[in-house]
Amino acid sequence: MSEFEEIKASVTRFADARDWGKFHSPKNLAMALSVEAAELVEIFQWLTEEQSAQLSCEALARVADEIADVQVYLVRLADRLRVNIPDAVAAKMQKNEQKYPADQVRGSARKYSEY
Amino acid sequence: MSEFEEIKASVTRFADARDWGKFHSPKNLAMALSVEAAELVEIFQWLTEEQSAQLSCEALARVADEIADVQVYLVRLADRLRVNIPDAVAAKMQKNEQKYPADQVRGSARKYSEY
Amino acid sequence: MSEFEEIKASVTRFADARDWGKFHSPKNLAMALSVEAAELVEIFQWLTEEQSAQLSCEALARVADEIADVQVYLVRLADRLRVNIPDAVAAKMQKNEQKYPADQVRGSARKYSEY
Amino acid sequence: MSEFEEIKASVTRFADARDWGKFHSPKNLAMALSVEAAELVEIFQWLTEEQSAQLSCEALARVADEIADVQVYLVRLADRLRVNIPDAVAAKMQKNEQKYPADQVRGSARKYSEY
Repeated sequence: MSEFEEIKASVTRFADARDWGKFHSPKNLAMALSVEAAELVEIFQWLTEEQSAQLSCEALARVADEIADVQVYLVRLADRLRVNIPDAVAAKMQKNEQKYPADQVRGSARKYSEY
Repeated sequence: MSEFEEIKASVTRFADARDWGKFHSPKNLAMALSVEAAELVEIFQWLTEEQSAQLSCEALARVADEIADVQVYLVRLADRLRVNIPDAVAAKMQKNEQKYPADQVRGSARKYSEY
Repeated sequence: MSEFEEIKASVTRFADARDWGKFHSPKNLAMALSVEAAELVEIFQWLTEEQSAQLSCEALARVADEIADVQVYLVRLADRLRVNIPDAVAAKMQKNEQKYPADQVRGSARKYSEY
Repeated sequence: MSEFEEIKASVTRFADARDWGKFHSPKNLAMALSVEAAELVEIFQWLTEEQSAQLSCEALARVADEIADVQVYLVRLADRLRVNIPDAVAAKMQKNEQKYPADQVRGSARKYSEY
């Protein structure tokens, strides 16, 4: 099994064992995903950018947990809507290549801020 | 290369070609991730839960794009902090197994809402 | 003092007494605001829309606290950027009146979802 | 009418004229609020903290619009749940005074980061 299939299987098993599928509408999963994303932001909100790159072991462990939570809900949401994540990423990266031509936007915060 | 390594490599190539690494502090990436998560939420916010499971092709394509954006920033953030996503997910799922014993929380919105 | 001035004065006093002004860049305040908004979402994420309108006293008290947190950061952010909130709301409501003519969008989820 | 009552009346009039009340469950309003908060974050995400305090007129106008959007949904949500915002803020600020004694947390990012 590939990595994404592995995560999907593990999350499905977990939710099925608890009969939690009924709470997992795409609407609710999108909400839950955004809440977990905010828990990531919370770790960084009062740090400088420099500090955010030099986390304590404790903070790093919290970050890893929150990254996992976001990944779990993202896989679950994609599963519910039959979206293949690696395919969606490949397609989006191709769009980004065309939207942001490297030779025109190089190093520019201005262009970047419109990203 | 595994799926996650593939995404990581593709995102690194994209950012390097544009000299955008300097904008990608963990703090900024966490913010960008939460903004993309909100763009997912925006698609679902006025739909009922039922409607959210029966999207039009057009809405589904938007969802796939936003899922890709979240995945890209999540992989980039994890890369910057040297977090291995599949490992982090496996560790978190094990914690969840212990925190939410299947026989005690089955089907319960109450227990679930404390999730 | 008007209500907004009252809140602004109380938040300024609180932050000054703790020398926390240095953490309150607009960037950081926007992050903090979004984190508090997510804490509101968290309360509602597994509830149905109906349940969300019939909260327990306990849940309602949590909601009131989170609404207060969002309001505090919003006032603080506006203060830092010299934005007058009542004026900004009045101007935005006027734009909305023109953007969503009542006779064209009445009761429509479709139009609304583009809101 | 006080400032908050003024905003509440204006938003109610706007929603009633469009028959949009039916979309405004507390769950949906909390989602919409978090989406608007993310639109604020989006303006700041690639700026340094310094840059975020020195916005162009154009960026500042966008910020004012987004602040208004957050305020509108916050007032609407509070109205739906019969929460009085000025009272909720006063009560929360009192809790904060006790939770963060000025003489113990002064100037500390560490204490603050637990805020």
